[in-house]
Amino acid sequence: MRQQTMLAPTLREVGAEAEMASHRLMLRAGMIRQLAAGVYSYLPLGYRTLRKVEQIVREEIDRIGAQEVLMPAMNPAELWKESGRWDTYGPELVTMQDRHQREFLLGPTHEEVITHLLRHEVRSYKKLPMSLYQIQTKFRDERRPRSGLLRGREFVMKDAYSFHGDLESLDVTYRDMYNAYVRIFSRLGLDFRAVEADSGAIGGKESHEFMVLSDSGEDTLAVCEKCDYAANVETAQARMPKEGFTPPVDADRVPAPSKVSTPGVSAAAAVATHLNVPLERVIKSLLFLVDDKPVLVLVRGDDDANEVKVKNALDAIEVTLADEATVRRITGAPTGFAGPVGLQEEVRVVADDAVRGLADAVIGTNEADAHLIHVNPERDFDVDVYADLRTVKEGDACPRCNGTIRFKRGIEVGHVFKLGTKYSDAMDGTFLDGEGKEQPFIMGCYGIGVSRVMAAIVEQHHDESGIRWPLAAAPFQVHLIVVNAKKEEQASLAEELYSQLQQAGVEVLYDNRSERAGVKFKDSDLIGIPLRLTVGGKADQGLVEYKFRRSGESGDLSANELDVKLPELLKRVDG
Amino acid sequence: MRQQTMLAPTLREVGAEAEMASHRLMLRAGMIRQLAAGVYSYLPLGYRTLRKVEQIVREEIDRIGAQEVLMPAMNPAELWKESGRWDTYGPELVTMQDRHQREFLLGPTHEEVITHLLRHEVRSYKKLPMSLYQIQTKFRDERRPRSGLLRGREFVMKDAYSFHGDLESLDVTYRDMYNAYVRIFSRLGLDFRAVEADSGAIGGKESHEFMVLSDSGEDTLAVCEKCDYAANVETAQARMPKEGFTPPVDADRVPAPSKVSTPGVSAAAAVATHLNVPLERVIKSLLFLVDDKPVLVLVRGDDDANEVKVKNALDAIEVTLADEATVRRITGAPTGFAGPVGLQEEVRVVADDAVRGLADAVIGTNEADAHLIHVNPERDFDVDVYADLRTVKEGDACPRCNGTIRFKRGIEVGHVFKLGTKYSDAMDGTFLDGEGKEQPFIMGCYGIGVSRVMAAIVEQHHDESGIRWPLAAAPFQVHLIVVNAKKEEQASLAEELYSQLQQAGVEVLYDNRSERAGVKFKDSDLIGIPLRLTVGGKADQGLVEYKFRRSGESGDLSANELDVKLPELLKRVDG
Repeated sequence: MRQQTMLAPTLREVGAEAEMASHRLMLRAGMIRQLAAGVYSYLPLGYRTLRKVEQIVREEIDRIGAQEVLMPAMNPAELWKESGRWDTYGPELVTMQDRHQREFLLGPTHEEVITHLLRHEVRSYKKLPMSLYQIQTKFRDERRPRSGLLRGREFVMKDAYSFHGDLESLDVTYRDMYNAYVRIFSRLGLDFRAVEADSGAIGGKESHEFMVLSDSGEDTLAVCEKCDYAANVETAQARMPKEGFTPPVDADRVPAPSKVSTPGVSAAAAVATHLNVPLERVIKSLLFLVDDKPVLVLVRGDDDANEVKVKNALDAIEVTLADEATVRRITGAPTGFAGPVGLQEEVRVVADDAVRGLADAVIGTNEADAHLIHVNPERDFDVDVYADLRTVKEGDACPRCNGTIRFKRGIEVGHVFKLGTKYSDAMDGTFLDGEGKEQPFIMGCYGIGVSRVMAAIVEQHHDESGIRWPLAAAPFQVHLIVVNAKKEEQASLAEELYSQLQQAGVEVLYDNRSERAGVKFKDSDLIGIPLRLTVGGKADQGLVEYKFRRSGESGDLSANELDVKLPELLKRVDG
Repeated sequence: MRQQTMLAPTLREVGAEAEMASHRLMLRAGMIRQLAAGVYSYLPLGYRTLRKVEQIVREEIDRIGAQEVLMPAMNPAELWKESGRWDTYGPELVTMQDRHQREFLLGPTHEEVITHLLRHEVRSYKKLPMSLYQIQTKFRDERRPRSGLLRGREFVMKDAYSFHGDLESLDVTYRDMYNAYVRIFSRLGLDFRAVEADSGAIGGKESHEFMVLSDSGEDTLAVCEKCDYAANVETAQARMPKEGFTPPVDADRVPAPSKVSTPGVSAAAAVATHLNVPLERVIKSLLFLVDDKPVLVLVRGDDDANEVKVKNALDAIEVTLADEATVRRITGAPTGFAGPVGLQEEVRVVADDAVRGLADAVIGTNEADAHLIHVNPERDFDVDVYADLRTVKEGDACPRCNGTIRFKRGIEVGHVFKLGTKYSDAMDGTFLDGEGKEQPFIMGCYGIGVSRVMAAIVEQHHDESGIRWPLAAAPFQVHLIVVNAKKEEQASLAEELYSQLQQAGVEVLYDNRSERAGVKFKDSDLIGIPLRLTVGGKADQGLVEYKFRRSGESGDLSANELDVKLPELLKRVDG
């Protein structure tokens, strides 16, 4: 395509509201333009990349036997009332009424529609398993749309849904999808991790998020330095540090507990300082309401209790930290002085695994301004349940190997999720099994934020001059530039190469504009096409300069041998 | 793809509300399913055809140098208020509010968004002409959505927009688009006509509708039997019939007009009978209000006055037939007795070209229950303007050649339109011309109803057993059927052929279901894949039956020579 007549308006500057590199650079490169907050037009360069990402997603999802469909954006409210999400989804749901005042929403995801479709169309176990997917524009009315394509209100998503007769079949498809995602993000040149999104204590609901590593990501991941273990920090499994911090204590020689005065000292760190004991030997006692019942959660002073883990460990639906009034009512003391010793019997005590190994510890007394010292768990108080209840920290041991956990930031680009029978139960989605009995579909769902992937690629692949597209996602493969189109020998060689490349099926953007060379090179770096071919001063010798956008490597090349050399050059552009 | 695990639920019956063949057959073939009135899901077979149509559209629109973009469905109301369409578009506009109560609409078309985009991004004449297009889901809240994909509320459209510095450039692109449309609809195997949608008296605004000929179409076309002239019957040019119906009258020998009594006889046909004159020698005089001024329109008794033509001939904005009270006030007589003789002077008289040739005619007197006979136009009354003011009739002469006009029904699948400066004037869409002066963009717009095209293909290509897809739009190229999968020699040959076809890149649907042969053949006819290959009783001799869905031609073929014969068979399927 000739740049002269292309809608590719590059910009030197963009507004300060474009904070993320991908937002800024895609605006500057003339790939996207904002129409309203979180609502973007894709210009020709941007749309070409969007379609390349779509196509790679399609190829890999097709490869595992999923069938492509297209469901409507307009979803009748009734279906979402059946599933319950009409009331629970919140203000992010875009709703509308038609001319007859019937309620609709614009689908942010399509579990209801696909469950509705299959409950009518698939009656027999013989049709299972079945996987369906679509690549479609989705709507979510974000409170603060920002970051360009990373968090929009109208965006392109690939959403897939699988239907099964048994859990084993779901496991197989889940693994297929997982592997397809690995291939997709690998082909797109992304450095990513598949992280455990839920430690999975409840009913076998497995889930992984695919995170592109980026300092600008919104999520924090716990990643092993050594093996491929990675998890969302909210739910990552914890293991004792390789080296205990606590000086070894002989539990048998610890004297009986005794009460000491800690006037106004309640925070674990302050208690440790006040009593001159290591922080990790202070036990934090936190009162939670778990499905409305009081539970005392014990973690080491240097750890934080993790609500998701408490919820999973106790198979609960709702977990909240008790407020001051509740703490006073149940412990008889202000917040900060609770403890398991002498507590009302109906309060369950659950402790993090790391508490089990402690001895000679300090703990609350259920009395203001006092703590107990010389406390040994088990000897001095009972624990109903030990479990992994703490949030991981950098430096923790990997739960899988002997590596060390480090924190990274990530951008979520994909999610695979075992839904189980959540939607089929709510919406009566059943089939007849081999014995003619009604069974609910067992389901999985699998999403990729296609437009968000575009932005994630730019977050990982850019420098101060612009984007550096990997070949697989680049809007064009080759950027052909004529330095001075007024010079006959340059113009004619460039035109000749342009035809030759087009005929060879190479995707080439041809900068034939009458701009200064400096402007053309700046725009070229900004747009970030992997291979640049420049026809300039050496055109009279039949020479062309090639330059890789990524590595900066450049050299001369005879125009005559371009057809031979090009495949080899294109193989090296991502290196 | 294996039919056993495909979501392709065929139906023997569908509800009576599916009146159109395309609606009924696409439901029955398991290609689409309704989610809400006018809102459909595309199942795998339907989506494959939709994508084929999209791809043909894309190739041909790319070929003429248009650039593909993607604009948002969510359009801010402000833009549509600028153009004026927020208030004029009517209840078909789907509107909504975001969580901050800002008004949006879901685009039924994108003139506003593209004009907004280009007024900011294209400042210089050097970037012109520029054509942009998208293939996108559109929304229009039809009052009575019906006919399946022919008239939906959510549908897929290709919409293109061109921007120009002068009218000549618009002409060139208009012609390119027109030709691209001809190629698109031809490649899709459609019998269509490009019809003049407006006779074009106002400001050079040319427009053509592309109509697929079909008895079930909503539009009526006037089509020449001989040349390629075709027009919407609303605006088709009229020419005198080849053979005049009137017996020749010598105008010079017609006596002076005289009044005759026609008590209660006002309709032209009744007058003709009552006075025993040929209907075509009765002149109908119709009082219109043209931009609020009275105009008497004369047409022959056997013709109908055409409001669009009156509007164009008088360069008017609004034309309405006068009501009874107005007729009485201006003519002094009840409706049915108006005439040009003795009328108030401020009433203009315009006459259809066919009136000019009349002599010895009958006409109203502006008096109840009386007509004038022996009337000659020009001699007995003045005509301010002669023009083509009548609606064409079957049997009329073609305005282009000596052929005869016939009426056909059609389905509108495309529209090309010279917008001129309508949107650029309203929205301040300007560029700088060669002399640095601000000029409004001159624009064209060009639409194709992509999902409607699918339905139009089915309307033209079906029989009582099902769809007969042309190869270009077929969901698969080959339908491979194993008659009895339990017979080892059939199963193994079919499996072998399935792999072989897939490896050769042939799109093949493989019916490996354990259904009875009759069911499989019925479903195959219904789905309508152009070439069927059946592995049955002659599998032990290595023979396969081929059958063309369109012609019904069939024969045996050695499985060994399939790779050689297949390309040749595929060439013949549409024949």
